[in-house]
Amino acid sequence: MSASGGPTPPFTTLSISQPASHVTHVELHRPEKRNAMNQAFWSEMIDCFNQIAEDPECRVVVFSGAGKLFTAGIDLMDMAGGLLRPDADDTARISWKVRQTISKYQETFSVIEKCPKPVVVAVHGACVGAGVDLITACDIRLCTQDAWFQVKEVDIGLAADVGTLQRLPKVIGSGSLVNELALTARKMYSDEAKSSGLVSRVFPDKETLMAGAMEVAGEIASRSPVAVQGTKINLIFSRDHSVKEGLDFAAMWNMSMLQTDDLMKSAQAALEKKSIKQVVFSKL
Amino acid sequence: MSASGGPTPPFTTLSISQPASHVTHVELHRPEKRNAMNQAFWSEMIDCFNQIAEDPECRVVVFSGAGKLFTAGIDLMDMAGGLLRPDADDTARISWKVRQTISKYQETFSVIEKCPKPVVVAVHGACVGAGVDLITACDIRLCTQDAWFQVKEVDIGLAADVGTLQRLPKVIGSGSLVNELALTARKMYSDEAKSSGLVSRVFPDKETLMAGAMEVAGEIASRSPVAVQGTKINLIFSRDHSVKEGLDFAAMWNMSMLQTDDLMKSAQAALEKKSIKQVVFSKL
Amino acid sequence: MSASGGPTPPFTTLSISQPASHVTHVELHRPEKRNAMNQAFWSEMIDCFNQIAEDPECRVVVFSGAGKLFTAGIDLMDMAGGLLRPDADDTARISWKVRQTISKYQETFSVIEKCPKPVVVAVHGACVGAGVDLITACDIRLCTQDAWFQVKEVDIGLAADVGTLQRLPKVIGSGSLVNELALTARKMYSDEAKSSGLVSRVFPDKETLMAGAMEVAGEIASRSPVAVQGTKINLIFSRDHSVKEGLDFAAMWNMSMLQTDDLMKSAQAALEKKSIKQVVFSKL
Amino acid sequence: MSASGGPTPPFTTLSISQPASHVTHVELHRPEKRNAMNQAFWSEMIDCFNQIAEDPECRVVVFSGAGKLFTAGIDLMDMAGGLLRPDADDTARISWKVRQTISKYQETFSVIEKCPKPVVVAVHGACVGAGVDLITACDIRLCTQDAWFQVKEVDIGLAADVGTLQRLPKVIGSGSLVNELALTARKMYSDEAKSSGLVSRVFPDKETLMAGAMEVAGEIASRSPVAVQGTKINLIFSRDHSVKEGLDFAAMWNMSMLQTDDLMKSAQAALEKKSIKQVVFSKL
Amino acid sequence: MSASGGPTPPFTTLSISQPASHVTHVELHRPEKRNAMNQAFWSEMIDCFNQIAEDPECRVVVFSGAGKLFTAGIDLMDMAGGLLRPDADDTARISWKVRQTISKYQETFSVIEKCPKPVVVAVHGACVGAGVDLITACDIRLCTQDAWFQVKEVDIGLAADVGTLQRLPKVIGSGSLVNELALTARKMYSDEAKSSGLVSRVFPDKETLMAGAMEVAGEIASRSPVAVQGTKINLIFSRDHSVKEGLDFAAMWNMSMLQTDDLMKSAQAALEKKSIKQVVFSKL
Amino acid sequence: MSASGGPTPPFTTLSISQPASHVTHVELHRPEKRNAMNQAFWSEMIDCFNQIAEDPECRVVVFSGAGKLFTAGIDLMDMAGGLLRPDADDTARISWKVRQTISKYQETFSVIEKCPKPVVVAVHGACVGAGVDLITACDIRLCTQDAWFQVKEVDIGLAADVGTLQRLPKVIGSGSLVNELALTARKMYSDEAKSSGLVSRVFPDKETLMAGAMEVAGEIASRSPVAVQGTKINLIFSRDHSVKEGLDFAAMWNMSMLQTDDLMKSAQAALEKKSIKQVVFSKL
Repeated sequence: MSASGGPTPPFTTLSISQPASHVTHVELHRPEKRNAMNQAFWSEMIDCFNQIAEDPECRVVVFSGAGKLFTAGIDLMDMAGGLLRPDADDTARISWKVRQTISKYQETFSVIEKCPKPVVVAVHGACVGAGVDLITACDIRLCTQDAWFQVKEVDIGLAADVGTLQRLPKVIGSGSLVNELALTARKMYSDEAKSSGLVSRVFPDKETLMAGAMEVAGEIASRSPVAVQGTKINLIFSRDHSVKEGLDFAAMWNMSMLQTDDLMKSAQAALEKKSIKQVVFSKL
Repeated sequence: MSASGGPTPPFTTLSISQPASHVTHVELHRPEKRNAMNQAFWSEMIDCFNQIAEDPECRVVVFSGAGKLFTAGIDLMDMAGGLLRPDADDTARISWKVRQTISKYQETFSVIEKCPKPVVVAVHGACVGAGVDLITACDIRLCTQDAWFQVKEVDIGLAADVGTLQRLPKVIGSGSLVNELALTARKMYSDEAKSSGLVSRVFPDKETLMAGAMEVAGEIASRSPVAVQGTKINLIFSRDHSVKEGLDFAAMWNMSMLQTDDLMKSAQAALEKKSIKQVVFSKL
Repeated sequence: MSASGGPTPPFTTLSISQPASHVTHVELHRPEKRNAMNQAFWSEMIDCFNQIAEDPECRVVVFSGAGKLFTAGIDLMDMAGGLLRPDADDTARISWKVRQTISKYQETFSVIEKCPKPVVVAVHGACVGAGVDLITACDIRLCTQDAWFQVKEVDIGLAADVGTLQRLPKVIGSGSLVNELALTARKMYSDEAKSSGLVSRVFPDKETLMAGAMEVAGEIASRSPVAVQGTKINLIFSRDHSVKEGLDFAAMWNMSMLQTDDLMKSAQAALEKKSIKQVVFSKL
Repeated sequence: MSASGGPTPPFTTLSISQPASHVTHVELHRPEKRNAMNQAFWSEMIDCFNQIAEDPECRVVVFSGAGKLFTAGIDLMDMAGGLLRPDADDTARISWKVRQTISKYQETFSVIEKCPKPVVVAVHGACVGAGVDLITACDIRLCTQDAWFQVKEVDIGLAADVGTLQRLPKVIGSGSLVNELALTARKMYSDEAKSSGLVSRVFPDKETLMAGAMEVAGEIASRSPVAVQGTKINLIFSRDHSVKEGLDFAAMWNMSMLQTDDLMKSAQAALEKKSIKQVVFSKL
Repeated sequence: MSASGGPTPPFTTLSISQPASHVTHVELHRPEKRNAMNQAFWSEMIDCFNQIAEDPECRVVVFSGAGKLFTAGIDLMDMAGGLLRPDADDTARISWKVRQTISKYQETFSVIEKCPKPVVVAVHGACVGAGVDLITACDIRLCTQDAWFQVKEVDIGLAADVGTLQRLPKVIGSGSLVNELALTARKMYSDEAKSSGLVSRVFPDKETLMAGAMEVAGEIASRSPVAVQGTKINLIFSRDHSVKEGLDFAAMWNMSMLQTDDLMKSAQAALEKKSIKQVVFSKL
Repeated sequence: MSASGGPTPPFTTLSISQPASHVTHVELHRPEKRNAMNQAFWSEMIDCFNQIAEDPECRVVVFSGAGKLFTAGIDLMDMAGGLLRPDADDTARISWKVRQTISKYQETFSVIEKCPKPVVVAVHGACVGAGVDLITACDIRLCTQDAWFQVKEVDIGLAADVGTLQRLPKVIGSGSLVNELALTARKMYSDEAKSSGLVSRVFPDKETLMAGAMEVAGEIASRSPVAVQGTKINLIFSRDHSVKEGLDFAAMWNMSMLQTDDLMKSAQAALEKKSIKQVVFSKL
């Protein structure tokens, strides 16, 4: 179920397909470069997820990596020049430009979060550096038995600035583990990823992983898009606010969203013991 | 130790008893309806917990469900009409009323949190839909081996708006698991509830569960109510604020609370190696 | 590797040493008093960590306890008088002084967090009361198989006000467990400390623990101090803010910090497959 | 237009009338006691404004004082005992009760803010102490030439705790003036009240004041209640949040509120150059 | 100094010119339609200010309206259809689209705030409805004697949602006045605009207004762009945060920005009593 | 009433005296240098206000400048070297040190705010640059007719980072004026300072100014220190928080502070129509 023919134009690093109804599969596709993230990748992600956000046919996304591993992280060769040494007249002006560049790179992963469709990420093999920044912006994380994770930034002399330090502490429960991973750059293997809660399921190999990811995606795709996307939006809002603010937000959100026909359709199916998969919901 | 004779008037869905000194037992009591939450339940909870909050004899609450399971969640038959289709002249006015209704329903579970006495919830069998909203508002969660939990809202076409999406991410450590549960409505069994931290203990059956819950409640009831209730208030404040704000709050709180005689009584008992259960504290 | 000769003057409760390059070892050193925290301790900690924060030779701290156990917590005999019964003319004025005292005591552990150098804490045997306040302010927590932890405050009649209630919920993922520990004062042993994420590793005994702590510290000490200390600062900021605020902070931070020579040195070493331990970084 | 016959039962301190269509007039009515706020007042206000909030006929409130002046503030004789010296066993327990009492008294004025109908307050003569707490919770402030205002609390030995210190700095622009008034208890006369922005208009005497207040109220009452009450709710939310949060709130609010028929009715009237007063809006 | 030939292609509602060194003049240019804001305007503003933000030649913006008045606000004829009645299958889906539309329209004015170059707005004649939303997003407000301002939204049945309710309370000091304007839609004339602080200067007529705006702009343009744009960024951050957060932000910002050569150049000029206008600063 | 003999040892830039009971006068005393702020000043302020905060005899502070004017701001000659060009190995390390330095300088003015005793500042003649940072941290601002104020930082190439940009928008109501002052560095004279609310009173000359400041200070000094200092603490908290948070804070604060004997003493005096100046309050 991987896109055999390589990247989907106009993209050069991403392959896009529709493996099932309402499911979009985005594959990071630079297998010969260990799916390292080059300059093209950083902007293609933004275009890709903005399109997905607008696409009424898509209700859920599966994200994975082509080839032997998920991603080796940033492509240092391709990236270093522009980012680290912008051309400007003094330190203040260099800093000004560096800040703009970092903000742009942050957007590459924040689009995943801003897209109201849930994103299921399936990790096999290595997930290094910016790969961790990426997966922490996804909603559901699954991996293979042979997967490993490495917060690599400290090894190359910087504090991670495109998501890991901001999101990792909010997706796993152990502060000590987060700090240890971020400060020592040690590898974490799938069993610890599972016990710490980074991933919610581990699969024997890539084939079962992809099948598992598709099944989860299928469950999500079959439900009301009003309910599903509202759930994602509320979960992300709640993460960043107090319980009281989260409740107020939910009441405001649902004052209109409860006026959907999906509610009656879903309730009807539940009462009739019909599978939710048989219900047809309007586009959103 | 369950209230054999049914609901305690004027309540029709709740049975209230005092199984031990300073311990109040609230039992959700509609066993013939799988403890489904009907219209009466939503307002009785508010009255019940407001009374408990004011009752100087009560220092801790045990909450459980009568019959075969904890709760099947919202009673769709009893509830749907009023909530979903208020009578009003246009969409804005319907929305206005829906928002008021949701806020009122949120209060049903928020009273648990606003009540300064700790609430220990004991779950056996099914805990579905609004049941999860309820238990996440409790302080300590215990369950039986046969318990299972299901965030059901997405199955009936809505984003959960009375607590689950707001509190679940703050009571268990795995973001991926929270999202998976909320977006797919899959069941979670007791072992995963334990390993993910949703519950802090699992018991073989309902009898041992209730005994365990009573033991925990007994430990709490025997300690200074100034210390215990101050601890709950500080924990809830801290959850929603930065560490610095939490520390400032604690300093303000304790500037008067440390001037309690309980401190000397407790310290005395500790120095004399007496059991805390022998100390008599004034009412609060 | 423990400081054999007792406290390091002018300190009377802390022993300071440099067991390895760029590593400072701080040992709580009142073994005959079970490392109980007396009045001297509370101010010595502030001096000690302020010095460490300023010391360009130090890049990481290992914190442990001398003797049979980590710490028995507050030294009630030494402390109680001054704190609880300040001399003043009315309740308001007593409260005013109590608040000042609590704030000062909070600083004793907050200095650990304000110090930009990571602190690895190694716990063996008992870690009671204020000991838990202390370790939750550290960055990485390790322990021995025989370690146990107890949030003791409720036993002596107060709500914990120097860190536990504020930080514990942010370092372990299970809300139910946090509440149970804080409300019942029950002991938690090393296996539950590990599974709940309070500690990220458990060692067979104190010797292996200290070796393990030193190894983790060595990994940290060998990396760019700009990267390491920036990582700690960003992690702590992110804990207390939304993801968006955390990302904005990181972009501001790195607009200047990416202009470090450490980046090139680290990247160079990575490309040449040299160990990071061979790279010489300037002082910070 | 004042309610001649005294308080409106069951109220003993408030007189309620409907001087015009959709306008409710609430008059503080203890003229023989200089409208001092006794124990009854504090709870009657809550009942009164909760009723107004629910009353679909009311779209705007005018609040004023009967007799020679607006209010002399708290009725010290009637109040002091209960509040200041609750009966309890130790300082902590007294503090616990005092906090509950203050919170309850705060609600007396916060109901004005929680009521979605705008409240126009008309002040003549003295407005002292708790009177300032009251008027800062209103939406529009008007006064007579002979009006004066005094933040009195510091004179009787306390920091104002029912609204003045919290709201005054948010309703007038000069920090220096706020501090001076609150710290010295000096009187401020109508001209300074106008130039500082505390009131938005000054009238020669009570008669013109009441006419002016009724005119402002009439303008508000004639407009769409969806628009008016949404405006109040958004203004209060914005006061307490960042601009970005305020904008997000407004977008959420209006996603349903723009679906009101009032929009078309109002636009129609505007296009036809008809007075808004001729448009009939549904109840809200 | 107005752009005589009409809109500057590709814009159809905006005329762009460079009346002086480093100064960009943006003129709202639909004089025959009273500068009413049609659909094109809402997106052209975004393009225009994004270009200005990137243009290193521009250091300050003057914004004004062509013809007889500043703006009559939203062009109801051109706008109403799309916004109010999006095509969708149920209320939830309509609401979903309405929210997206509102957010997009909010961006039209938020780009002014996000653009780091200060914007001086010069208002003559009427400034109605969305015109007030626009000017509150500008940094400095100037007007003619004949100018008047009207928060119009409540007149057409809605709560203002693109900036006025969010920003107006933060740019003028009188809460009572803000509420009165927003709830009654009454006109405010230039003298009250000045005394309330909405504008900081009033000019006799449009000619002197434009000269005054250009003079202010010239003062800003002559200063270090690092200092000026950093000042705007810090002022906007501070508006939405506590003083402590604002100070921390400023320290982070200036840790690199103080390393500009502009500091030495400016200080040098100050010491030599040279005009700042003679100093040449690098582009930013 | 100025300290004739110059600075009070060990201070070299500040003269400290007690002109009246419970009143401390701090005079910026480098008249021959136009009270420019040299390196000594920045640390002396911290020592001075920390002492005042602890001094039970002091209940209020008057702050003024010796000689012809209030202050010319920062002493560029004395300051520039250290601040702008710290010695370090790369840009990151220079930035690190600059940030520490700025934070230290911010503390120089933040101590005024942290000191619970109100500070009345009396400005005559020029108040330039860092002078504005200083006065915005004071509680009450008074000035002479000949006073003028200038936010100078943009003129020397930087965004103000020690208080002006953070506090000025919170002490005066006109956003447009704040921005104009900060972006153009134009002078503001006493009349505009008064009408904008920067100062709350203007006096004909320095003599009447100092008499006026002493009178205000005397009013404050005669009132309960529990009430006065609690008022300052609550006002500052409220400025940085929502109204709801401010009210909760006040309830917590007063749960102990209302238990002061000052309340009864003050109430007694009020009932007996005695001057508050005759009441003797205990030290705080």
